[in-house]
Amino acid sequence: MASIQKPKLEVCLSPALLHLYDTTGSVVVIIDIFRATSTITAALSNGAKCVLPVASVEGCIELGKLIDNSITAGERDGKVAEGLQYGNSPLEYPNEFIKGKTLVLTTTNGTRLLHMVQGASVIVIGSFLNLAAVCDFLKKQNKNVLLGCASWKDRFNMEDTLFAGAVVAEVRDSFDINCDSARAAATLYRDASEVGLIEFLKDSSHYRRLSGFGLAQDMEYCTTLNTHPVVPVLKGNEIVVSN
Amino acid sequence: MASIQKPKLEVCLSPALLHLYDTTGSVVVIIDIFRATSTITAALSNGAKCVLPVASVEGCIELGKLIDNSITAGERDGKVAEGLQYGNSPLEYPNEFIKGKTLVLTTTNGTRLLHMVQGASVIVIGSFLNLAAVCDFLKKQNKNVLLGCASWKDRFNMEDTLFAGAVVAEVRDSFDINCDSARAAATLYRDASEVGLIEFLKDSSHYRRLSGFGLAQDMEYCTTLNTHPVVPVLKGNEIVVSN
Repeated sequence: MASIQKPKLEVCLSPALLHLYDTTGSVVVIIDIFRATSTITAALSNGAKCVLPVASVEGCIELGKLIDNSITAGERDGKVAEGLQYGNSPLEYPNEFIKGKTLVLTTTNGTRLLHMVQGASVIVIGSFLNLAAVCDFLKKQNKNVLLGCASWKDRFNMEDTLFAGAVVAEVRDSFDINCDSARAAATLYRDASEVGLIEFLKDSSHYRRLSGFGLAQDMEYCTTLNTHPVVPVLKGNEIVVSN
Repeated sequence: MASIQKPKLEVCLSPALLHLYDTTGSVVVIIDIFRATSTITAALSNGAKCVLPVASVEGCIELGKLIDNSITAGERDGKVAEGLQYGNSPLEYPNEFIKGKTLVLTTTNGTRLLHMVQGASVIVIGSFLNLAAVCDFLKKQNKNVLLGCASWKDRFNMEDTLFAGAVVAEVRDSFDINCDSARAAATLYRDASEVGLIEFLKDSSHYRRLSGFGLAQDMEYCTTLNTHPVVPVLKGNEIVVSN
Protein backbone atom coordinates (compact mmCIF):
# COMPACT_ATOMS: atom_id res chain seq x y z
CA MET A 1 0.00 0.00 0.00
CA ALA A 2 1.37 3.38 -0.96
CA SER A 3 1.89 5.74 1.94
CA ILE A 4 -0.44 8.69 1.85
CA GLN A 5 1.17 12.11 1.92
CA LYS A 6 -0.75 14.48 4.10
CA PRO A 7 -1.30 18.00 2.80
CA LYS A 8 0.83 20.76 4.29
CA LEU A 9 -0.35 23.38 6.78
CA GLU A 10 1.51 26.64 7.40
CA VAL A 11 0.83 29.85 9.30
CA CYS A 12 1.65 33.29 7.90
CA LEU A 13 1.93 35.77 10.77
CA SER A 14 1.69 38.98 8.71
CA PRO A 15 0.66 40.08 5.20
CA ALA A 16 4.26 41.33 4.85
CA LEU A 17 5.38 37.68 4.93
CA LEU A 18 2.75 36.37 2.49
CA HIS A 19 5.24 36.30 -0.42
CA LEU A 20 7.14 33.52 1.38
CA TYR A 21 4.27 31.10 0.89
CA ASP A 22 2.98 29.47 -2.28
CA THR A 23 -0.79 29.72 -2.11
CA THR A 24 -1.43 28.24 -5.55
CA GLY A 25 -4.17 25.65 -5.26
CA SER A 26 -4.27 26.02 -1.47
CA VAL A 27 -7.03 26.75 0.96
CA VAL A 28 -6.24 30.12 2.53
CA VAL A 29 -7.94 31.15 5.76
CA ILE A 30 -8.15 34.89 6.35
CA ILE A 31 -7.96 35.75 10.05
CA ASP A 32 -8.83 39.20 11.38
CA ILE A 33 -10.33 38.43 14.77
CA PHE A 34 -10.74 42.05 15.97
CA ARG A 35 -13.08 42.37 14.12
CA ALA A 36 -13.51 41.95 10.36
CA THR A 37 -13.66 38.17 10.05
CA SER A 38 -15.77 37.88 13.22
CA THR A 39 -18.27 40.41 11.83
CA ILE A 40 -18.41 38.72 8.42
CA THR A 41 -19.02 35.35 10.06
CA ALA A 42 -21.77 36.70 12.32
CA ALA A 43 -23.54 38.61 9.54
CA LEU A 44 -23.59 35.61 7.20
CA SER A 45 -24.64 33.22 9.94
CA ASN A 46 -27.47 35.62 10.78
CA GLY A 47 -28.78 35.51 7.22
CA ALA A 48 -26.97 38.20 5.23
CA LYS A 49 -27.19 37.41 1.51
CA CYS A 50 -23.49 38.11 1.08
CA VAL A 51 -20.66 40.35 2.24
CA LEU A 52 -18.76 42.53 -0.21
CA PRO A 53 -15.33 43.39 1.20
CA VAL A 54 -13.93 46.67 -0.12
CA ALA A 55 -10.70 48.47 0.64
CA SER A 56 -11.84 52.08 0.84
CA VAL A 57 -14.66 54.08 2.37
CA GLU A 58 -15.28 55.70 -1.03
CA GLY A 59 -15.59 52.30 -2.73
CA CYS A 60 -17.96 51.21 0.00
CA ILE A 61 -20.25 54.22 -0.56
CA GLU A 62 -20.29 53.74 -4.33
CA LEU A 63 -21.09 50.03 -4.17
CA GLY A 64 -23.79 50.68 -1.61
CA LYS A 65 -25.55 52.97 -4.09
CA LEU A 66 -25.41 50.35 -6.86
CA ILE A 67 -26.72 47.38 -4.91
CA ASP A 68 -30.35 46.99 -3.87
CA ASN A 69 -31.09 46.09 -0.28
CA SER A 70 -27.51 46.72 0.79
CA ILE A 71 -26.04 48.46 3.78
CA THR A 72 -22.63 50.06 3.98
CA ALA A 73 -20.41 49.55 6.97
CA GLY A 74 -16.94 50.19 8.25
CA GLU A 75 -15.02 51.99 10.94
CA ARG A 76 -11.96 54.11 11.19
CA ASP A 77 -10.42 54.48 14.63
CA GLY A 78 -13.32 52.75 16.34
CA LYS A 79 -16.09 54.95 14.90
CA VAL A 80 -18.45 54.47 11.95
CA ALA A 81 -16.59 56.02 9.03
CA GLU A 82 -18.04 59.20 7.57
CA GLY A 83 -20.53 58.45 4.80
CA LEU A 84 -21.19 54.88 5.97
CA GLN A 85 -24.22 53.61 7.85
CA TYR A 86 -22.95 51.00 10.28
CA GLY A 87 -19.84 49.88 12.10
CA ASN A 88 -17.61 46.84 12.25
CA SER A 89 -19.11 45.06 15.22
CA PRO A 90 -20.43 41.49 15.00
CA LEU A 91 -23.14 42.54 17.46
CA GLU A 92 -24.62 45.05 15.03
CA TYR A 93 -25.93 42.40 12.64
CA PRO A 94 -28.68 40.28 14.24
CA ASN A 95 -30.92 38.19 12.00
CA GLU A 96 -33.91 40.54 12.16
CA PHE A 97 -31.74 43.32 10.75
CA ILE A 98 -29.32 41.70 8.31
CA LYS A 99 -31.43 38.86 6.82
CA GLY A 100 -31.37 38.93 3.01
CA LYS A 101 -29.25 42.08 2.85
CA THR A 102 -25.89 42.61 1.19
CA LEU A 103 -23.32 43.92 3.65
CA VAL A 104 -20.81 46.17 1.88
CA LEU A 105 -17.99 46.24 4.40
CA THR A 106 -14.72 48.14 4.39
CA THR A 107 -11.99 47.01 6.75
CA THR A 108 -8.31 47.78 6.54
CA ASN A 109 -6.18 44.80 7.47
CA GLY A 110 -8.53 41.92 6.64
CA THR A 111 -9.65 43.22 3.24
CA ARG A 112 -6.08 43.99 2.25
CA LEU A 113 -4.88 40.46 2.98
CA LEU A 114 -7.90 38.98 1.19
CA HIS A 115 -6.99 40.91 -1.94
CA MET A 116 -3.30 39.99 -1.73
CA VAL A 117 -3.82 36.22 -1.91
CA GLN A 118 -3.05 34.80 -5.35
CA GLY A 119 -4.17 31.58 -6.99
CA ALA A 120 -5.84 29.98 -3.97
CA SER A 121 -8.24 27.13 -4.49
CA VAL A 122 -10.57 28.76 -2.01
CA ILE A 123 -10.39 31.65 0.45
CA VAL A 124 -12.16 31.04 3.74
CA ILE A 125 -13.10 33.49 6.51
CA GLY A 126 -12.03 32.27 9.94
CA SER A 127 -12.93 33.48 13.42
CA PHE A 128 -13.46 31.98 16.85
CA LEU A 129 -17.19 32.23 16.12
CA ASN A 130 -16.85 29.53 13.43
CA LEU A 131 -13.68 27.73 14.56
CA ALA A 132 -15.05 24.17 14.50
CA ALA A 133 -16.86 24.69 11.19
CA VAL A 134 -13.67 26.00 9.56
CA CYS A 135 -11.61 23.12 10.96
CA ASP A 136 -14.10 20.54 9.65
CA PHE A 137 -14.00 22.24 6.26
CA LEU A 138 -10.17 22.20 6.16
CA LYS A 139 -9.99 18.53 7.05
CA LYS A 140 -12.37 17.63 4.22
CA GLN A 141 -10.52 19.52 1.45
CA ASN A 142 -7.35 17.40 1.32
CA LYS A 143 -5.42 20.42 0.10
CA ASN A 144 -2.52 22.47 1.44
CA VAL A 145 -3.64 25.12 3.91
CA LEU A 146 -2.27 28.54 4.73
CA LEU A 147 -3.63 30.27 7.80
CA GLY A 148 -3.15 33.98 7.09
CA CYS A 149 -3.14 36.46 9.95
CA ALA A 150 -4.30 39.91 8.84
CA SER A 151 -2.33 41.39 11.74
CA TRP A 152 -2.30 45.13 12.45
CA LYS A 153 -0.61 47.24 9.78
CA ASP A 154 1.65 44.25 9.05
CA ARG A 155 2.65 43.83 12.69
CA PHE A 156 2.30 40.45 14.34
CA ASN A 157 -0.74 40.43 16.56
CA MET A 158 -1.75 38.11 19.33
CA GLU A 159 -5.43 37.51 18.64
CA ASP A 160 -5.00 36.42 15.02
CA THR A 161 -2.09 34.19 16.03
CA LEU A 162 -4.17 32.58 18.78
CA PHE A 163 -6.88 31.70 16.27
CA ALA A 164 -4.28 30.17 13.95
CA GLY A 165 -3.06 28.18 16.95
CA ALA A 166 -6.59 27.02 17.74
CA VAL A 167 -6.92 25.68 14.19
CA VAL A 168 -3.51 23.99 14.33
CA ALA A 169 -4.43 22.32 17.63
CA GLU A 170 -7.66 21.01 16.12
CA VAL A 171 -6.49 19.79 12.70
CA ARG A 172 -2.81 18.84 13.28
CA ASP A 173 -3.38 15.10 12.80
CA SER A 174 -4.69 15.67 9.28
CA PHE A 175 -1.74 17.75 8.05
CA ASP A 176 2.03 17.70 7.68
CA ILE A 177 3.22 20.68 9.73
CA ASN A 178 6.86 21.77 9.52
CA CYS A 179 6.37 25.45 10.27
CA ASP A 180 7.67 27.22 13.36
CA SER A 181 4.89 29.84 13.15
CA ALA A 182 2.30 27.07 13.41
CA ARG A 183 4.07 25.54 16.40
CA ALA A 184 4.39 28.90 18.12
CA ALA A 185 0.72 29.69 17.48
CA ALA A 186 -0.44 26.34 18.87
CA THR A 187 1.73 26.76 21.96
CA LEU A 188 0.39 30.27 22.57
CA TYR A 189 -3.18 29.05 22.13
CA ARG A 190 -2.63 26.31 24.68
CA ASP A 191 -1.30 28.91 27.13
CA ALA A 192 -4.19 31.27 26.41
CA SER A 193 -6.78 28.52 26.83
CA GLU A 194 -5.50 27.86 30.33
CA VAL A 195 -6.28 31.38 31.53
CA GLY A 196 -9.13 32.16 29.12
CA LEU A 197 -8.71 33.83 25.73
CA ILE A 198 -9.90 37.30 26.66
CA GLU A 199 -7.92 37.30 29.89
CA PHE A 200 -4.77 36.32 27.98
CA LEU A 201 -5.43 39.05 25.42
CA LYS A 202 -5.91 41.86 27.93
CA ASP A 203 -2.30 43.02 27.68
CA SER A 204 -2.22 42.77 23.87
CA SER A 205 -1.78 45.93 21.83
CA HIS A 206 -5.06 45.59 19.94
CA TYR A 207 -7.08 44.94 23.09
CA ARG A 208 -5.62 48.05 24.66
CA ARG A 209 -6.37 50.11 21.59
CA LEU A 210 -9.94 48.90 21.05
CA SER A 211 -10.88 48.97 24.73
CA GLY A 212 -9.85 52.63 24.63
CA PHE A 213 -12.63 53.04 22.04
CA GLY A 214 -15.13 51.34 24.39
CA LEU A 215 -15.12 48.08 22.44
CA ALA A 216 -14.33 45.59 25.23
CA GLN A 217 -17.74 43.89 24.83
CA ASP A 218 -17.06 43.37 21.11
CA MET A 219 -13.76 41.69 21.85
CA GLU A 220 -15.34 39.43 24.44
CA TYR A 221 -17.88 38.37 21.83
CA CYS A 222 -15.19 37.83 19.18
CA THR A 223 -13.41 35.35 21.45
CA THR A 224 -16.42 33.10 22.10
CA LEU A 225 -16.22 29.75 20.34
CA ASN A 226 -18.56 28.33 17.73
CA THR A 227 -21.60 30.56 18.14
CA HIS A 228 -21.87 30.92 14.34
CA PRO A 229 -21.07 27.56 12.70
CA VAL A 230 -20.86 28.66 9.06
CA VAL A 231 -17.97 28.62 6.57
CA PRO A 232 -17.84 31.90 4.64
CA VAL A 233 -15.92 31.61 1.37
CA LEU A 234 -15.01 34.09 -1.35
CA LYS A 235 -16.89 33.56 -4.65
CA GLY A 236 -15.84 36.15 -7.18
CA ASN A 237 -16.03 39.39 -5.22
CA GLU A 238 -18.62 38.16 -2.75
CA ILE A 239 -18.24 36.36 0.52
CA VAL A 240 -21.02 33.81 0.89
CA VAL A 241 -21.76 30.79 3.06
CA SER A 242 -20.21 27.62 1.64
CA ASN A 243 -22.72 24.93 0.75
CA MET B 1 8.84 64.70 40.83
CA ALA B 2 8.46 64.23 37.09
CA SER B 3 7.52 60.72 36.05
CA ILE B 4 10.27 58.97 34.20
CA GLN B 5 9.37 57.56 30.83
CA LYS B 6 10.95 54.17 30.31
CA PRO B 7 12.50 53.45 26.94
CA LYS B 8 10.57 51.20 24.57
CA LEU B 9 11.40 47.59 23.77
CA GLU B 10 10.07 45.80 20.69
CA VAL B 11 10.72 42.48 18.96
CA CYS B 12 11.01 42.14 15.18
CA LEU B 13 10.32 38.53 14.20
CA SER B 14 11.76 38.65 10.68
CA PRO B 15 13.98 40.92 8.55
CA ALA B 16 10.96 41.26 6.23
CA LEU B 17 9.23 43.18 9.04
CA LEU B 18 12.17 45.44 9.92
CA HIS B 19 10.74 48.40 7.99
CA LEU B 20 7.90 48.57 10.54
CA TYR B 21 10.29 49.66 13.28
CA ASP B 22 12.15 52.92 13.70
CA THR B 23 15.67 51.97 14.72
CA THR B 24 17.04 55.52 14.71
CA GLY B 25 19.03 56.04 17.87
CA SER B 26 18.05 52.63 19.20
CA VAL B 27 20.02 49.69 20.46
CA VAL B 28 19.43 46.84 18.02
CA VAL B 29 20.22 43.28 19.04
CA ILE B 30 20.93 40.90 16.16
CA ILE B 31 19.79 37.36 16.94
CA ASP B 32 20.84 34.37 14.84
CA ILE B 33 21.05 31.58 17.40
CA PHE B 34 21.75 28.73 14.96
CA ARG B 35 24.55 29.71 14.62
CA ALA B 36 26.02 33.04 13.51
CA THR B 37 25.56 35.13 16.63
CA SER B 38 26.53 32.21 18.87
CA THR B 39 29.73 31.69 16.90
CA ILE B 40 30.61 35.40 16.93
CA THR B 41 30.05 35.55 20.69
CA ALA B 42 32.18 32.47 21.35
CA ALA B 43 35.03 33.58 19.06
CA LEU B 44 35.25 37.04 20.64
CA SER B 45 34.96 35.69 24.16
CA ASN B 46 37.79 33.29 23.35
CA GLY B 47 40.07 36.14 22.31
CA ALA B 48 39.48 36.85 18.63
CA LYS B 49 40.66 40.37 17.79
CA CYS B 50 37.46 41.04 15.87
CA VAL B 51 34.88 39.47 13.59
CA LEU B 52 34.24 40.83 10.11
CA PRO B 53 30.76 39.82 8.93
CA VAL B 54 30.46 39.57 5.15
CA ALA B 55 27.53 38.63 2.97
CA SER B 56 29.22 36.48 0.31
CA VAL B 57 31.76 33.68 0.13
CA GLU B 58 33.67 35.68 -2.49
CA GLY B 59 33.85 38.74 -0.24
CA CYS B 60 35.04 36.53 2.58
CA ILE B 61 37.89 35.09 0.48
CA GLU B 62 38.99 38.56 -0.71
CA LEU B 63 39.00 40.10 2.76
CA GLY B 64 40.88 37.10 4.13
CA LYS B 65 43.70 37.77 1.67
CA LEU B 66 43.92 41.44 2.67
CA ILE B 67 44.00 41.02 6.43
CA ASP B 68 47.02 39.67 8.32
CA ASN B 69 46.45 36.92 10.84
CA SER B 70 42.91 36.33 9.66
CA ILE B 71 40.94 33.21 9.00
CA THR B 72 37.99 32.85 6.67
CA ALA B 73 34.91 30.96 7.72
CA GLY B 74 31.40 30.17 6.64
CA GLU B 75 29.11 27.35 5.69
CA ARG B 76 26.57 26.63 3.05
CA ASP B 77 24.14 23.79 3.74
CA GLY B 78 26.03 22.67 6.81
CA LYS B 79 29.46 22.31 5.17
CA VAL B 80 32.50 24.64 5.04
CA ALA B 81 31.91 26.72 1.92
CA GLU B 82 34.28 26.12 -0.99
CA GLY B 83 37.32 28.40 -0.75
CA LEU B 84 36.93 29.04 2.99
CA GLN B 85 38.96 27.53 5.80
CA TYR B 86 36.55 26.98 8.67
CA GLY B 87 32.89 26.53 9.45
CA ASN B 88 30.19 28.29 11.40
CA SER B 89 30.37 26.36 14.67
CA PRO B 90 31.01 28.07 18.00
CA LEU B 91 32.99 24.97 18.98
CA GLU B 92 35.58 25.55 16.26
CA TYR B 93 37.05 28.64 17.90
CA PRO B 94 38.74 27.83 21.22
CA ASN B 95 41.14 30.37 22.73
CA GLU B 96 44.32 28.54 21.71
CA PHE B 97 43.22 28.77 18.09
CA ILE B 98 41.39 32.08 17.70
CA LYS B 99 43.29 34.36 20.12
CA GLY B 100 44.39 37.59 18.40
CA LYS B 101 43.03 36.55 15.01
CA THR B 102 40.51 38.31 12.81
CA LEU B 103 37.59 36.04 11.98
CA VAL B 104 36.21 36.89 8.53
CA LEU B 105 32.80 35.21 8.68
CA THR B 106 30.12 34.87 6.07
CA THR B 107 26.64 33.91 7.18
CA THR B 108 23.40 34.37 5.31
CA ASN B 109 20.58 35.43 7.59
CA GLY B 110 22.49 37.13 10.41
CA THR B 111 24.80 39.19 8.20
CA ARG B 112 21.91 40.29 6.03
CA LEU B 113 19.92 41.62 8.97
CA LEU B 114 23.01 43.34 10.40
CA HIS B 115 23.47 45.23 7.15
CA MET B 116 19.79 46.15 6.89
CA VAL B 117 19.62 48.06 10.18
CA GLN B 118 19.68 51.85 9.69
CA GLY B 119 20.65 54.59 12.08
CA ALA B 120 21.00 52.52 15.24
CA SER B 121 22.89 53.94 18.19
CA VAL B 122 24.63 50.60 18.56
CA ILE B 123 24.22 47.12 17.10
CA VAL B 124 24.76 44.28 19.55
CA ILE B 125 25.24 40.57 18.93
CA GLY B 126 22.99 38.43 21.11
CA SER B 127 22.99 34.70 21.84
CA PHE B 128 22.17 32.43 24.74
CA LEU B 129 25.94 32.25 25.37
CA ASN B 130 25.93 35.92 26.40
CA LEU B 131 22.30 36.42 27.45
CA ALA B 132 22.92 37.97 30.87
CA ALA B 133 25.72 40.22 29.58
CA VAL B 134 23.49 41.54 26.79
CA CYS B 135 20.60 42.13 29.22
CA ASP B 136 22.85 44.06 31.60
CA PHE B 137 24.10 46.14 28.68
CA LEU B 138 20.54 46.93 27.50
CA LYS B 139 19.44 48.00 30.96
CA LYS B 140 22.36 50.44 31.24
CA GLN B 141 21.81 52.20 27.89
CA ASN B 142 18.50 53.91 28.67
CA LYS B 143 17.62 53.82 24.98
CA ASN B 144 14.88 52.19 22.94
CA VAL B 145 15.67 48.59 22.06
CA LEU B 146 14.75 46.47 19.08
CA LEU B 147 15.41 42.74 19.33
CA GLY B 148 15.87 41.62 15.72
CA CYS B 149 15.45 37.96 14.82
CA ALA B 150 17.49 37.00 11.76
CA SER B 151 15.04 34.14 11.15
CA TRP B 152 15.49 31.73 8.24
CA LYS B 153 15.09 33.27 4.80
CA ASP B 154 12.67 35.78 6.34
CA ARG B 155 10.55 33.07 7.93
CA PHE B 156 9.75 33.24 11.63
CA ASN B 157 11.92 30.80 13.52
CA MET B 158 11.59 29.41 16.98
CA GLU B 159 15.14 29.64 18.34
CA ASP B 160 15.64 33.34 17.59
CA THR B 161 12.19 34.09 19.03
CA LEU B 162 13.01 32.16 22.19
CA PHE B 163 16.13 34.23 22.71
CA ALA B 164 14.13 37.43 22.24
CA GLY B 165 11.73 36.07 24.84
CA ALA B 166 14.58 35.34 27.24
CA VAL B 167 15.71 38.96 26.98
CA VAL B 168 12.16 40.29 27.44
CA ALA B 169 11.71 38.13 30.54
CA GLU B 170 14.96 39.47 31.99
CA VAL B 171 14.67 43.20 31.21
CA ARG B 172 10.90 43.83 31.14
CA ASP B 173 10.88 45.98 34.29
CA SER B 174 13.28 48.46 32.71
CA PHE B 175 11.27 49.02 29.52
CA ASP B 176 7.87 50.05 28.25
CA ILE B 177 6.68 47.05 26.23
CA ASN B 178 3.54 47.35 24.08
CA CYS B 179 4.44 44.82 21.43
CA ASP B 180 2.62 41.54 20.85
CA SER B 181 5.75 39.94 19.38
CA ALA B 182 7.58 40.61 22.63
CA ARG B 183 4.75 39.13 24.67
CA ALA B 184 4.54 36.07 22.44
CA ALA B 185 8.31 35.57 22.61
CA ALA B 186 8.36 35.81 26.41
CA THR B 187 5.46 33.36 26.71
CA LEU B 188 7.16 30.88 24.39
CA TYR B 189 10.42 31.21 26.33
CA ARG B 190 8.62 30.47 29.59
CA ASP B 191 7.12 27.36 28.01
CA ALA B 192 10.47 26.30 26.57
CA SER B 193 12.26 26.81 29.88
CA GLU B 194 9.89 24.40 31.55
CA VAL B 195 10.89 21.51 29.29
CA GLY B 196 14.42 22.66 28.47
CA LEU B 197 15.36 24.79 25.48
CA ILE B 198 16.84 22.08 23.29
CA GLU B 199 14.00 19.69 24.05
CA PHE B 200 11.47 22.37 23.12
CA LEU B 201 13.35 23.10 19.89
CA LYS B 202 13.56 19.50 18.71
CA ASP B 203 10.48 19.79 16.53
CA SER B 204 11.50 23.17 15.09
CA SER B 205 12.29 23.43 11.40
CA HIS B 206 15.88 24.63 11.89
CA TYR B 207 16.68 21.89 14.41
CA ARG B 208 15.40 19.30 11.98
CA ARG B 209 17.44 20.76 9.14
CA LEU B 210 20.71 21.17 11.04
CA SER B 211 20.49 17.83 12.85
CA GLY B 212 20.24 16.31 9.38
CA PHE B 213 23.70 17.81 8.77
CA GLY B 214 25.00 16.18 11.98
CA LEU B 215 25.00 19.45 13.94
CA ALA B 216 22.95 18.45 16.99
CA GLN B 217 25.95 19.01 19.30
CA ASP B 218 26.34 22.55 17.96
CA MET B 219 22.73 23.35 18.69
CA GLU B 220 22.99 21.95 22.20
CA TYR B 221 25.97 24.25 22.77
CA CYS B 222 24.15 27.26 21.28
CA THR B 223 21.36 26.86 23.81
CA THR B 224 23.56 26.87 26.92
CA LEU B 225 23.28 30.05 28.96
CA ASN B 226 26.00 32.56 29.77
CA THR B 227 29.12 30.56 28.98
CA HIS B 228 30.60 33.58 27.13
CA PRO B 229 29.73 36.77 29.06
CA VAL B 230 30.84 39.36 26.50
CA VAL B 231 28.90 42.02 24.60
CA PRO B 232 29.95 42.07 20.94
CA VAL B 233 29.10 45.36 19.20
CA LEU B 234 29.53 46.62 15.67
CA LYS B 235 32.19 49.36 15.27
CA GLY B 236 32.45 50.42 11.67
CA ASN B 237 32.64 47.13 9.81
CA GLU B 238 34.08 45.17 12.70
CA ILE B 239 32.39 43.33 15.52
CA VAL B 240 34.43 43.76 18.70
CA VAL B 241 33.91 43.26 22.42
CA SER B 242 32.30 46.32 24.03
CA ASN B 243 34.43 47.94 26.74
